[in-house]
Amino acid sequence: MHWRIVVKLSAVLAFFLGLSMLGPFLASLYYQDGVSSGVFFAMLATLGSGLAGYLLTRKTETPQLGHRDGVAVVSFGWVLAGLFGTLPYLFSGAIPDFTDACFESFSGFTTTGASILTQIEGLPESILLWRSLTQWLGGMGIIVLSIAILPFLGIGGMQLYKAEIPSPVIDKLKPRISETAKTLWKVYILITVVEIFLLAAGGMPLFDAVCHAFCTLPTGGFSTRNASIAAYSSAYFDGVIIVFMLLAGINFSLHYRLLKGDWRIFGRDPECRVFLGIVAILTFLVTIDVHGAVYDSLDTAFRYAAFQVSSIITTTGFATADYDRWPPLSQIILLACMFLGGMAGSTGGGIKIMRIMLLARHSYQEIFRIIHPHAVTTVKLGGKAVPQEVLTSIWGFFALYIGLFLAGSLLMASLGLDLISAFSSVAATLGNIGPGLALVGPVQNFAAVPLPGKWVLIACMLLGRLEIYTVIVLLVPEYWRK
Amino acid sequence: MHWRIVVKLSAVLAFFLGLSMLGPFLASLYYQDGVSSGVFFAMLATLGSGLAGYLLTRKTETPQLGHRDGVAVVSFGWVLAGLFGTLPYLFSGAIPDFTDACFESFSGFTTTGASILTQIEGLPESILLWRSLTQWLGGMGIIVLSIAILPFLGIGGMQLYKAEIPSPVIDKLKPRISETAKTLWKVYILITVVEIFLLAAGGMPLFDAVCHAFCTLPTGGFSTRNASIAAYSSAYFDGVIIVFMLLAGINFSLHYRLLKGDWRIFGRDPECRVFLGIVAILTFLVTIDVHGAVYDSLDTAFRYAAFQVSSIITTTGFATADYDRWPPLSQIILLACMFLGGMAGSTGGGIKIMRIMLLARHSYQEIFRIIHPHAVTTVKLGGKAVPQEVLTSIWGFFALYIGLFLAGSLLMASLGLDLISAFSSVAATLGNIGPGLALVGPVQNFAAVPLPGKWVLIACMLLGRLEIYTVIVLLVPEYWRK
Repeated sequence: MHWRIVVKLSAVLAFFLGLSMLGPFLASLYYQDGVSSGVFFAMLATLGSGLAGYLLTRKTETPQLGHRDGVAVVSFGWVLAGLFGTLPYLFSGAIPDFTDACFESFSGFTTTGASILTQIEGLPESILLWRSLTQWLGGMGIIVLSIAILPFLGIGGMQLYKAEIPSPVIDKLKPRISETAKTLWKVYILITVVEIFLLAAGGMPLFDAVCHAFCTLPTGGFSTRNASIAAYSSAYFDGVIIVFMLLAGINFSLHYRLLKGDWRIFGRDPECRVFLGIVAILTFLVTIDVHGAVYDSLDTAFRYAAFQVSSIITTTGFATADYDRWPPLSQIILLACMFLGGMAGSTGGGIKIMRIMLLARHSYQEIFRIIHPHAVTTVKLGGKAVPQEVLTSIWGFFALYIGLFLAGSLLMASLGLDLISAFSSVAATLGNIGPGLALVGPVQNFAAVPLPGKWVLIACMLLGRLEIYTVIVLLVPEYWRK
Repeated sequence: MHWRIVVKLSAVLAFFLGLSMLGPFLASLYYQDGVSSGVFFAMLATLGSGLAGYLLTRKTETPQLGHRDGVAVVSFGWVLAGLFGTLPYLFSGAIPDFTDACFESFSGFTTTGASILTQIEGLPESILLWRSLTQWLGGMGIIVLSIAILPFLGIGGMQLYKAEIPSPVIDKLKPRISETAKTLWKVYILITVVEIFLLAAGGMPLFDAVCHAFCTLPTGGFSTRNASIAAYSSAYFDGVIIVFMLLAGINFSLHYRLLKGDWRIFGRDPECRVFLGIVAILTFLVTIDVHGAVYDSLDTAFRYAAFQVSSIITTTGFATADYDRWPPLSQIILLACMFLGGMAGSTGGGIKIMRIMLLARHSYQEIFRIIHPHAVTTVKLGGKAVPQEVLTSIWGFFALYIGLFLAGSLLMASLGLDLISAFSSVAATLGNIGPGLALVGPVQNFAAVPLPGKWVLIACMLLGRLEIYTVIVLLVPEYWRK
């Protein structure tokens, strides 16, 4: 492992993170929210740490990075971002407790959207902006991670996307990652700007429009209002946000191709078809289930159903309705959505549609193997055979996901949470959704979770966001052997 | 498909099933329970159907049976047993409703142990005996299915056990299956007799001892008492039943080897070590969790914890405590046990320890592949490499199991069951345990489940008991093609 280069890259990250705090700092001055000195010191400390680390390691030549370095850079990078991200909360006094600040910061950078804050509307503007910004930056990280880095690390079946990257990339970690990143970030920024415009055009104050757009594209789900996005619930806002949540749940390289003029790419991509199909079917089922039981009119039922299904399957976590009071069928569908997640290469979390598709096809194929024991069969995606090693990676990922879900639920239950709260808090953080059910439901928050439970959930957010293996591999002695 | 031979084998099955009703009929006469004519006509109808079917097909030469025939014989056989099994309930008037009679009968033959009966102690002795007998016969079927048939059908990774069968068996369905069956049945009968003796020696009335032993060995869980086995709760009975539940959860070919003098086989078999280890660890955790919270003394806590863990992980479903009132940690552990299940080749249901072990090792190995991308690795069990096709079968099984659990839960929730009842009723029937939590908890029963829900759960019992693929394969058009 090349330690010095890992430190150098981390230092660069910290430096840019410090720079990004300029936004909240300027907001603090503009709105005179009274915490500008706290935000300033947070910025200074982050910039300083970055600079110091860089000065210590600047003479390090950048070597050819291997798999191990890649894993370390990704995991340490996210932990570092989470830790520095606490400084504005701590120094401004908005969240004085270290655990709570970590929870909020990791929830931001992992684009989870779970919050320990009980009173959001009273917060200084700079802090509200920082919360949203951590999600937006986290989303940028995820796009690069899932489209440019994971395919080369061969993690969780993402090697399938090696060929799908817009810019020509060769099979080593460093070269051209930056080019892919820049291309996709342009797309990401463009879509964010369009959403800000549409929200503002509908009458949302610009500050709130920016914050909500910053939390939609990364499928984050933080809001500037106590009632979440429900504070702006209207057919127009709901419609706009549903569309952008779904866009955020789609592979960003498809957006790139769309912008290049390939208008029918969404309909042609097999994963995208299945993703949109699932959203449609589940919205239909939930609409039927809540119509009559909760909402009298069919179009209201449809609006709330479509919003909640889109929000949870893309792992955004915005809520316009208290689905904790919906009938059990809808609750199970939403719980299932927590596990499904968005498309691979999107900013969404969860297991992801591509994996579910391949697992389903693989299982279905076993039926044919029983009927024709000697036939040779392959799992296909978009007409192409999927290599066995990709399937193996995906099975491993799936089993670990279920295993971690169970282990996390056991830990949460051992801390005294009831069954539904334990299950859904872990499902909602491991899948980077945000709100769960019961104690951690959409109109609740994570403040009441006992202290060790908050750390369990922080670990879940990080594991889920980094596709589990990236984190777990660091815990194996084999990793540290020369 | 050789239809005539499938009918012929089914007819033989019906004939023997009819013969087995002689037991309850004699019991009816002995105890003068007032339903002897009902039981007699049930016996007559079953025997008659069997004879008629046999006469129609007796001239059919037995051909070499293929994979398709094997699957059909197994699935139709179980459905037939379930249907004929309703006759004593219906004709005696003990369970006048057809759906309820089916539920009870399928619950018996699939060794599930879920009951729709609210009042058990008032039932005629012959009916109580028949309930227990269906489980005991179901257990006999399962031993043959899992050790002698599934390995050759290549279902769910059971092909791993091809080499482990006591008697020499060659790679075609029919020859020698009967020999393996006879050997293992002797073991099964022997252990049953020992349990009857030990229960009776402890002071349990002989009739109850027979019935409870008949429901322990197949990991069934029906009881002759309203309070389940709790009616006989004492350190002695609990201890005896714990031991025999665990024996029932162990691969019966290990028992055969033990009886042949291989005294250390339990400790040497890798799956058995893991199975007993899991039981020990989970018992420890539950003991700690319920001690203080539910039971004041540590040894009471241990006794109840050990009983419930053993009962659910072996998928027996006897209950000495109302674990629906236990703390959430214990509840999640017991829910997890429903999925784990016993060893492959035992009478237990669930996913089974062997599969969980291989999945865990396979997932763990993926970590090494990320560190050393070009290394060739294999999953091992007991020092031997496990073929890729076995792993593939197991992954397919696992995904289908989780998928069916989810689909079943959605159906149950759509019928109005609350979340916990929906999840646990499906987990408890798919895993062939019996009682679940909440509405279907250990001191409740399945009478209150709405009618369509009973059929969903009957389907779950059958799917779970026949390792899913055996049933599902019949629903694929490909199966019926020439």
